[in-house]
Amino acid sequence: MLKNVISPKKITGVETFNKKIAPLQERLGVLQRTFREKKIPVIIVVEGWDAAGITRSTKMVIRALDPRGFTLHTIEQPTDNERVRPFMWRFWIRMPPKGRIALFARSWYSRAISAEMQKPSWTKSLKGRIIAINNFERQISDDGALIIKFFLHIEKDEQKRRFEKREKDPLTAWLVSPELWNLHHHYDLSFPIVDNLLEKTDTKYAPWHVLDATDENYAVLNIYTTIIKTLEKTLSDQTSGKIPGSAAPQLPQKNPIKRSAGHLVPEKTCTKEGCQQVLDSLQTEMIRVQSLLFKRKIPLIIVFEGRDAAGKGGNITRIARYLNPRGYDVIPVSAPDATEKSHHYLWRFIKNFPKEGHIAIFDRSWYGRVLVERVENYCTKNEWQRAYGEINDMEADYVYSTGGGIIKFWLEISKDEQLRRFEQRRDDPLKQWKITDEDWRNRENWAQYEKAVDDMLERTNTKPAPWTVIESDDKWSARVKTIETVTSYCQKLLE
Amino acid sequence: MLKNVISPKKITGVETFNKKIAPLQERLGVLQRTFREKKIPVIIVVEGWDAAGITRSTKMVIRALDPRGFTLHTIEQPTDNERVRPFMWRFWIRMPPKGRIALFARSWYSRAISAEMQKPSWTKSLKGRIIAINNFERQISDDGALIIKFFLHIEKDEQKRRFEKREKDPLTAWLVSPELWNLHHHYDLSFPIVDNLLEKTDTKYAPWHVLDATDENYAVLNIYTTIIKTLEKTLSDQTSGKIPGSAAPQLPQKNPIKRSAGHLVPEKTCTKEGCQQVLDSLQTEMIRVQSLLFKRKIPLIIVFEGRDAAGKGGNITRIARYLNPRGYDVIPVSAPDATEKSHHYLWRFIKNFPKEGHIAIFDRSWYGRVLVERVENYCTKNEWQRAYGEINDMEADYVYSTGGGIIKFWLEISKDEQLRRFEQRRDDPLKQWKITDEDWRNRENWAQYEKAVDDMLERTNTKPAPWTVIESDDKWSARVKTIETVTSYCQKLLE
Repeated sequence: MLKNVISPKKITGVETFNKKIAPLQERLGVLQRTFREKKIPVIIVVEGWDAAGITRSTKMVIRALDPRGFTLHTIEQPTDNERVRPFMWRFWIRMPPKGRIALFARSWYSRAISAEMQKPSWTKSLKGRIIAINNFERQISDDGALIIKFFLHIEKDEQKRRFEKREKDPLTAWLVSPELWNLHHHYDLSFPIVDNLLEKTDTKYAPWHVLDATDENYAVLNIYTTIIKTLEKTLSDQTSGKIPGSAAPQLPQKNPIKRSAGHLVPEKTCTKEGCQQVLDSLQTEMIRVQSLLFKRKIPLIIVFEGRDAAGKGGNITRIARYLNPRGYDVIPVSAPDATEKSHHYLWRFIKNFPKEGHIAIFDRSWYGRVLVERVENYCTKNEWQRAYGEINDMEADYVYSTGGGIIKFWLEISKDEQLRRFEQRRDDPLKQWKITDEDWRNRENWAQYEKAVDDMLERTNTKPAPWTVIESDDKWSARVKTIETVTSYCQKLLE
Repeated sequence: MLKNVISPKKITGVETFNKKIAPLQERLGVLQRTFREKKIPVIIVVEGWDAAGITRSTKMVIRALDPRGFTLHTIEQPTDNERVRPFMWRFWIRMPPKGRIALFARSWYSRAISAEMQKPSWTKSLKGRIIAINNFERQISDDGALIIKFFLHIEKDEQKRRFEKREKDPLTAWLVSPELWNLHHHYDLSFPIVDNLLEKTDTKYAPWHVLDATDENYAVLNIYTTIIKTLEKTLSDQTSGKIPGSAAPQLPQKNPIKRSAGHLVPEKTCTKEGCQQVLDSLQTEMIRVQSLLFKRKIPLIIVFEGRDAAGKGGNITRIARYLNPRGYDVIPVSAPDATEKSHHYLWRFIKNFPKEGHIAIFDRSWYGRVLVERVENYCTKNEWQRAYGEINDMEADYVYSTGGGIIKFWLEISKDEQLRRFEQRRDDPLKQWKITDEDWRNRENWAQYEKAVDDMLERTNTKPAPWTVIESDDKWSARVKTIETVTSYCQKLLE
């Protein structure tokens, strides 16, 4: 994509520039407000060669914007908290809420190159990174966000001229480090790699705009007109009914999974006392695997899904008791609040993804999208159908990019057993807090949930993140199976 | 407080322990749920000498708790993001929402000692820290949170025995660093300092429980019974109508401040063109002071308050245009969302306090408590009256602990000028988005706001954080005065 971009004719004098930029700034200001009203989030990415003018260009774009409606993210080395998270984590948490603009001066692209190039098998890992980036941008775009990406291109000679000019000025000399010169000397080597990265990530939902940045004024004007054109096109597409993510989603293939028709008690059962003994004997192994995960910096996610009263709380308490409290978090999931609603539905979960070596236990999870949100019509059919593939992509990316694990439990109980537990809760003053009217209402939709659960298990039972069904009519046997699953999963993960 | 705590009689055997702990755990579990229902946040702090058993004790407390209802915070060295924030920032952001429990294994106490002791004038700075800690705990407590603090006490000989025991076990040997031995050798020197810190922070709202931790079982049982007693006393106090923060607050003294009776145009005025020229000439100075603040790692907060249409947006845009976008954030403040509402009212603002060397511009601020929340009865009279002192304390602590600055602007406009601007907005299709029904409603309460503004300016016009009134009927002259105030304030700050 970088070839034939540079042209000697593209020169804009200062006077022409000043005359041309004023109406563009005004227009962009108006468009920012329109997008705020229409609650469309906008992501503008500015990438390019070193010294191509990324800082100056973003500053010039900002001039036109209401400072209360945008955030500028200057992406440099990750902080220590970012370094211990999945690669895309620091970008996910920076995605703008509805109606805001996020400007990225450098982005996941620069970071992907500099992170992956240090690895011995970088071509392979860069390939994986490209898939993850495309998935990420597609998901954000399908959710209604607009992504505008710029690459500022200058030739090697021009870069050299700019470095030398900066070195002469004492105010900018410190900017030109030996590392930068080193990158400059590898310009020709980097060229095909960058070109390939751009080409592979030049998608319909997030196309690249590669600009000749030899003349800075020309580049800035070009950025302005491109942003304005893209924003206007989005508005006219909307008016004519073209909405992002509205294409019928491709459902992932079904992977059959054995649910417990007829036997809601695990094959191995034990009495309460027997189970407690087994559990206590598993404690040492839990402590051992947790400390190994910690030492090897492997993160682990444990997801609990299941009908009301299926035993999520009891299972989690049991696991937590055996863990070093410094190394895990329990994330209880309920209805999203206003801030969370103004973001992509995965945003609030990814925010809570574990640091390396840590364990995050989700009490309910992103699967709410294809369970309660589907059954209660909180999202469109299109949205929940799209979610299967989005979730599979997200889980796969997490596993591959961190080397971590995901254990997903579906706690299966029978309708009769649920009723028995509901009644017990209702009648026990110490347990009444556990049961709400909503639980009874959910129970009325048993059949609809049944269908949703089947679809969920079959469409998201993937190799990197398989489901484990726990037959939970017998509470104590279920806990044993849960803990055994966790320890044996971790043993494999540690192999 | 540490004297006469140790007693050789306090020994609890394993069997007695097991028999005693079970009912306490059950009771604590029930109390956790009650506090969740009553939406009372609980903060439990465990401090003590090294090797006194802080980790083991917190682990034992956690055993009794529903893991979905508490968070454990292990406080060690600050991360790089925490290091560049005000000292109390990392603790403020960890305060639990209503109904949750936050456990601190070590806390602001350990950090205060280790941070302040490195300074040459540590006795003075530790004194300042104690004031800040007491203010912090009082504010949290007045807001309805319960604070339970433990100090685990062991004697020097016992500490030595424990260090040596740990050194012998290959699994724990790495825990005993040369720094720890160094601290051990300074035990006698530290004793009066720690004792003094405990005494000075042993308050009615957050008393210390100093425990003999020579026998670990005894200490754990003591922690359990103390927590249970405190929780139960809080419930019975509530039933009998004793509510934290219900005492009539002491209002800070009034500091007279000149508001612009009669002249709502600054003394110096200029035409639009003249003003623009002055503004452009101030640009260089703005850039200069920003880069100096950045180099010297001094943070700056700029607060804009003012009636609707007083010109907050225009002023902020103008300042922002002159700043390096990497070094500032604009924080637009509107009604709090559900998560924010479940926290102390200052929480969402302190979260956004600037990093060292950075500038945070607040478009409306914590002063909403004594303006809109007072006028619209969103909080009680007691609460907004308490806020003056709380805000003064918070601002003073920020200034003293970071060496940073706060510039507070009140944009004053006349009732006639507001009407003119409202009508202009209403009639201009490009500006209609700026005006809402709420603005008209607020206008009807003009006189009530007038009273609230007077009180706010007079009671929070403090030496560390004074107000500047900007007469804003003339938009352009107002902008000049704003920017001039910022640059001259920064010049003084940098002296």
